[in-house]
Amino acid sequence: MTRALQLARQGLFSTHPNPRVGCVIVAACGEIVGEGWHVRAGEPHAEVHALRQAGERARGATAYVTLEPCSHHGRTPPCAEALVKAGVGRVVAAMQDPNPQVAGRGLERLRAAGIAVACGVLESEARELNVGFVKRMERGLPYVRVKLAMSLDGRTAMASGESQWITGPAARAAVQRLRARSSVIVTGADTVLFDNARLTVRADELGVEAEQAALAAARPPLRVLIDGQLRVPLTAAFFQAGPALVACCDDDGRAAEYQAAGHELQALPRGNGHVDLPLLLAGLAAGGANEVLVEAGPRLAGAFARKGLVDEYQIFMAPQLLGSSARPLLDWPLEHMAEAPQLAIREIRAVGNDWRIIAVPA
Amino acid sequence: MTRALQLARQGLFSTHPNPRVGCVIVAACGEIVGEGWHVRAGEPHAEVHALRQAGERARGATAYVTLEPCSHHGRTPPCAEALVKAGVGRVVAAMQDPNPQVAGRGLERLRAAGIAVACGVLESEARELNVGFVKRMERGLPYVRVKLAMSLDGRTAMASGESQWITGPAARAAVQRLRARSSVIVTGADTVLFDNARLTVRADELGVEAEQAALAAARPPLRVLIDGQLRVPLTAAFFQAGPALVACCDDDGRAAEYQAAGHELQALPRGNGHVDLPLLLAGLAAGGANEVLVEAGPRLAGAFARKGLVDEYQIFMAPQLLGSSARPLLDWPLEHMAEAPQLAIREIRAVGNDWRIIAVPA
Repeated sequence: MTRALQLARQGLFSTHPNPRVGCVIVAACGEIVGEGWHVRAGEPHAEVHALRQAGERARGATAYVTLEPCSHHGRTPPCAEALVKAGVGRVVAAMQDPNPQVAGRGLERLRAAGIAVACGVLESEARELNVGFVKRMERGLPYVRVKLAMSLDGRTAMASGESQWITGPAARAAVQRLRARSSVIVTGADTVLFDNARLTVRADELGVEAEQAALAAARPPLRVLIDGQLRVPLTAAFFQAGPALVACCDDDGRAAEYQAAGHELQALPRGNGHVDLPLLLAGLAAGGANEVLVEAGPRLAGAFARKGLVDEYQIFMAPQLLGSSARPLLDWPLEHMAEAPQLAIREIRAVGNDWRIIAVPA
Repeated sequence: MTRALQLARQGLFSTHPNPRVGCVIVAACGEIVGEGWHVRAGEPHAEVHALRQAGERARGATAYVTLEPCSHHGRTPPCAEALVKAGVGRVVAAMQDPNPQVAGRGLERLRAAGIAVACGVLESEARELNVGFVKRMERGLPYVRVKLAMSLDGRTAMASGESQWITGPAARAAVQRLRARSSVIVTGADTVLFDNARLTVRADELGVEAEQAALAAARPPLRVLIDGQLRVPLTAAFFQAGPALVACCDDDGRAAEYQAAGHELQALPRGNGHVDLPLLLAGLAAGGANEVLVEAGPRLAGAFARKGLVDEYQIFMAPQLLGSSARPLLDWPLEHMAEAPQLAIREIRAVGNDWRIIAVPA
């Protein structure tokens, strides 16, 4: 199963909106006779690749899959059927399909065909790998990561707004990988206006092997700009870098103008005078978004945090002090310690000269 | 030498103002025949303990010492002489005496007596162990550590001043050990007035073995209160907890009053209307202070930082957010990124549920 998870990870940048899935087929003698992973939507699932490689040797073998084999006809025929047809003797799945309406049916189909079935092997690793797909299936919302870059004293830019990449090349490559694995990157007007940000994936800066980089380049994440008042001009580098979705409060009749420039303008009901973020996220999930990366300034990132919409913070900390008048990590004024949100730190790791802190709400 | 350094560390809490020193004597056959470490000032040096244990077996043996043996008559006779007298065949020292006026003389004395001498084995570890003693000898100043406790977003207390220990018991024990190893603990009037801080070492909270705890209890660090305007009343818990030194700008003729209460009041020339910190540190070093721990609020800690007086930050980071209106890590307003002080992060380590960051000026 560890090998199957390793294979599944090959699809980290490309399977959207599908989950990353790997499959290993092991003959009775213990030899691996087939391996496969799901590359991209519309193409064969992991099981099909592995069964093709195994051929006749799949008969009586054990198939390890990181996700319950599908039982429905989608863009490809159901994998459960393929496994039955190939005559495998046993199927071990890391986890059930997280969609509550289908969970277990693939395994049932296998059992009905007389195949021995086990489920729950390395389940937490498997859920982690598809954390966004699992959340979307279970709750109709994407998994929201907020990326922040701060100084050791928790500041993001000078009071004047003066800012620049305070973190080094290794941290930037890590951010590129975060972008590449995301279905959607969300940013705000301030970031695009003041930092001239494009929020694209630059395949050559990912620091991964050529095959992965090519897959990432072929499946760019959707870039979403939250621009309530339509302040960002269509001439901005952000818009020049490719098609984007702009979420605003009122489209001012300008939808056609954005469309002509290759972008989509979407008006969302106001929540407190701002774009309604929960509604935006639900809409993105309905469109297949598994993982959403928020790369924005303290105001927008703070708005996500205040509304409890953040599943994970990825904070890149540079070894410097920006001082007590510099801008905060998040615009989130609190009066009493009792209100202070508790987090759990999952990991702190050196990334070049910087450090990455992964924290989740406790 | 690794063993000798281990022995030297036994004196971490007690050798002030002397350095921590360990000694191991190894006979020609490879057997350890004597071990010793310096316990406290006025008592025998490490070499003497080790030679006593070795007795006749020291003859022809190799002595490993973490610091060049002394060559002068202090409160105890010179160790170089004792080694010569015992007839050791070889002396390996981790480092020379850092005092430029004596460095090398102990080793010379040994060489003159026909003993083979080597120096520089595990030198960086040896210097690290006595980082304060080395700095005092070389530069006439103590090594200044600033301890800070902050939230993940770099804040120390709410805007209202509401604060409380935001870090857990493991972090508090680590702070106790920082206090116990220090010659001096420096704090400010704000911390004593608002947090009712005593800044004492509580031996039972050190989390170390009984022998070490007893040594720590027997050698409490000097507590120094920087109170320019003499705002802290003598009834404060800080003063009730034991004798202290109070540094002020003008003693207002109140020295006798402080003395009667068991404390010392010292007026220092003003630097910008505040107590002159470099002068204070030089005075502490002249009094034998090796390591100084600053435990103060953002104002005083910020003043040390702004003046470039900080050798090391020990930042305890709690996994919570205190928000954008909370108090900063250090009062240190900066306007431009070019002024931002660069640090090097030496270590980030989990301490209970909190994380300790050790950073030094880059």
